[in-house]
Amino acid sequence: MRSSASKEPVDRVGMLPAQLITRKRDGAALSAEEWRALVAGYTDGRVPDYQMSALLMAAFFRGLEPAELDALTDAMLASGSRLSFGAGVPPRVDKHSTGGIGDKVSVALAPLAAACGVAVPMISGRGLGHTGGTLDKLEAIPGFRTRMTLDEARRQVERIGCVMLGQTADLVPADRKLYALRDATGTVESIPLIAASIMSKKLAEGLDALVLDVKHGSGAFLPERERGLELARTMIALGAARGCRTVALLTAMDRPLGFACGNALETEEAFLLLRGEGPADLRAVTLALGAEMLVAAGVTPERDDAWRRLERALDSGAAAAIARQLVEAQGGNPAVVDDPAALPQAPRTEPWLAPRDGYIARVEARAIGWAVVEMGGGRRVIEDAVDPAVGFAITAKPGDRVTRGQPLATIYGRDDATLGIGRRALAQAITIGDTPPRDVLPLVGWRVTERGVEEL
Amino acid sequence: MRSSASKEPVDRVGMLPAQLITRKRDGAALSAEEWRALVAGYTDGRVPDYQMSALLMAAFFRGLEPAELDALTDAMLASGSRLSFGAGVPPRVDKHSTGGIGDKVSVALAPLAAACGVAVPMISGRGLGHTGGTLDKLEAIPGFRTRMTLDEARRQVERIGCVMLGQTADLVPADRKLYALRDATGTVESIPLIAASIMSKKLAEGLDALVLDVKHGSGAFLPERERGLELARTMIALGAARGCRTVALLTAMDRPLGFACGNALETEEAFLLLRGEGPADLRAVTLALGAEMLVAAGVTPERDDAWRRLERALDSGAAAAIARQLVEAQGGNPAVVDDPAALPQAPRTEPWLAPRDGYIARVEARAIGWAVVEMGGGRRVIEDAVDPAVGFAITAKPGDRVTRGQPLATIYGRDDATLGIGRRALAQAITIGDTPPRDVLPLVGWRVTERGVEEL
Repeated sequence: MRSSASKEPVDRVGMLPAQLITRKRDGAALSAEEWRALVAGYTDGRVPDYQMSALLMAAFFRGLEPAELDALTDAMLASGSRLSFGAGVPPRVDKHSTGGIGDKVSVALAPLAAACGVAVPMISGRGLGHTGGTLDKLEAIPGFRTRMTLDEARRQVERIGCVMLGQTADLVPADRKLYALRDATGTVESIPLIAASIMSKKLAEGLDALVLDVKHGSGAFLPERERGLELARTMIALGAARGCRTVALLTAMDRPLGFACGNALETEEAFLLLRGEGPADLRAVTLALGAEMLVAAGVTPERDDAWRRLERALDSGAAAAIARQLVEAQGGNPAVVDDPAALPQAPRTEPWLAPRDGYIARVEARAIGWAVVEMGGGRRVIEDAVDPAVGFAITAKPGDRVTRGQPLATIYGRDDATLGIGRRALAQAITIGDTPPRDVLPLVGWRVTERGVEEL
Repeated sequence: MRSSASKEPVDRVGMLPAQLITRKRDGAALSAEEWRALVAGYTDGRVPDYQMSALLMAAFFRGLEPAELDALTDAMLASGSRLSFGAGVPPRVDKHSTGGIGDKVSVALAPLAAACGVAVPMISGRGLGHTGGTLDKLEAIPGFRTRMTLDEARRQVERIGCVMLGQTADLVPADRKLYALRDATGTVESIPLIAASIMSKKLAEGLDALVLDVKHGSGAFLPERERGLELARTMIALGAARGCRTVALLTAMDRPLGFACGNALETEEAFLLLRGEGPADLRAVTLALGAEMLVAAGVTPERDDAWRRLERALDSGAAAAIARQLVEAQGGNPAVVDDPAALPQAPRTEPWLAPRDGYIARVEARAIGWAVVEMGGGRRVIEDAVDPAVGFAITAKPGDRVTRGQPLATIYGRDDATLGIGRRALAQAITIGDTPPRDVLPLVGWRVTERGVEEL
């Protein structure tokens, strides 16, 4: 190991990787050229995993200076292909969430925004840790295909205004390799590394604008609001400097979003929203993010006007129509948008009743998320098959007045064991107090732009 | 990568390596069982390099609690075989230096201490970075064999009182693998990791006592005295708790030790010392360390008495006699101890003259060490062949009054190029001032024992 590491200096940089790691470890900033050489060398295998993981851990502790983060992001972006669109295609805009429980916003928002005149080339990921992933939700639709080439994706956007796919082999290969490494080496929770990973992928989509849904609260990857704000500011600066207008909303993840938690259940709920129904909080977050998308893309300068356009697209059925086209174009049965029975159904359901009178104090999103994983609805390792049908519909929200015996949730299980996991998780996650809780986070609390942070 | 890492929990420990890395990263202490499982898993390949390097970098930043260091050291020690000796073998004692320039003490001290009635089973390393290694110095002797089994080593100790060999495949394999990884990943300069590496190897020698030569000053791996003292205290505690009485001397490495720098030249100088000659500073450091060895091993309770015994062994020729036996037992020509011509000779030599009148202010050991490497006398990568003949004899010492044109050093080169490297290095390393320097470190400055630090 020592020999191979010591023998091959990184291209065009005189220093060996071990020397660069040592300099980063000791608090120095690496040059743009050094980051470029390290990322290029790692992507093609000349810099081995064990050196990159040590460098990432050093970066975790030392942080990255703005110029280093710029260089890292650009180097990752340069590692693969990018989507590009011809003249005449509407402005491209995407939404990205940092991850939460019950967060099915993307499934509804891609067709909804497309129905309002923007193009949405959305590349999503799979479930990770306790949070679900948009790809898993879409794949709950029988036949739905999330693997396609960038060329196919581009053509679909040009035809129907949106596409929802998984990362391709040629899109930011450096990030795919780095992300897998970070996941295995305890280097995920670093703001600059998260920002470079997200923004390199989003910038590869060829976007004009990007709206970030930065979750905070106990169920979020970065629970503290200050860390969420820092991540938002970091990503906004990266986007802005690269011609992609970037805006962030900080939204609540101290409880699940909407009612449904579990892949098929969430997809069903997203379609419910597209038909003008569904939980109020899901609708509010979706419209708030959608309005930012339309304004950022220049469809309208007024957020209120954007909001009205989105509501009209829901009420008129225009958004649902795009959703049917999207499902059909990607191999699914378009009837699924209107008929929940076309989605996989859990063989067993069981209501979960309030154990006492009082006010809902907490619905712990993180515990719910892990329970879905344990029930088979998420992955412990990347190869795990996912059971799309299991999960929860939790109608209770913090602050609700409830009475003993009132149904607060439904558990969707495959058998006694999964129902048992669900029962125990709800008993742990839902707490009921004598008075209304005071610490519930605002659903959509802050807007972050290049100009600063605005409380909403 | 993610899959294999996530799929195989470390033996007997419920947590996955990535979770252990994350806990260490966030400042928690891992349990003894977790360290055991990680080291055992790493040694047999279940824990991959990229996870171990991230863990080591986290340990670099967070440090190790005493219980963690104990567990790591014991786990490394348990990874391989240990030397063990029958009844009737004198007390075993070794000396270990943290590394310096011109430090040929081991070559003289092993036979010298053996001549005074202790057994010295010395396992040494090769040159590293700017510092030389005892194995390279010994291998300057034509035919000298440093590879042998632990069983051969034990038999030689029982027969002639000392052996000098390289690390064997079965001795602390965990350290061999970890050391190569640290070297390639910028995680060498961590006091607990250095301490665990040194002490696991030394404890595997089956020692009753150990004397550490901790170098400080600009040419040392840890230049700051405080860091040297911390390393000494850390190793002493590890040794003491494992039945190996451990003592440290802090010695100067702001200038080379002795005159000779370069493998054959240093071996020659070590033999010169054994014949009662050689530079005064080399003799003083060797006797100081030897006296600590004899006292720690219980040969005599008095350091002064120990010193006299060592001087007698030099004067009587007893130490040189053991050296001849050692060289012969390990395949070399014993005449080399008395005849420098039996060592490889540099084809070109050149004096280096004082460029001005004044006082020697500095002889920068680090610059000299790197020059020897550049001249071919050390390794840039582990496979490099070493030219044993090249190097320097630098007779100038800080504080010496010199006059312009006076010879201060001799360069031993192979050709014009190596002589040129030597010339430039001396011009950079040797500085002459108008007044004597005030910041020269004391040659043997501090003694560290379990009871504390004593200024000498």
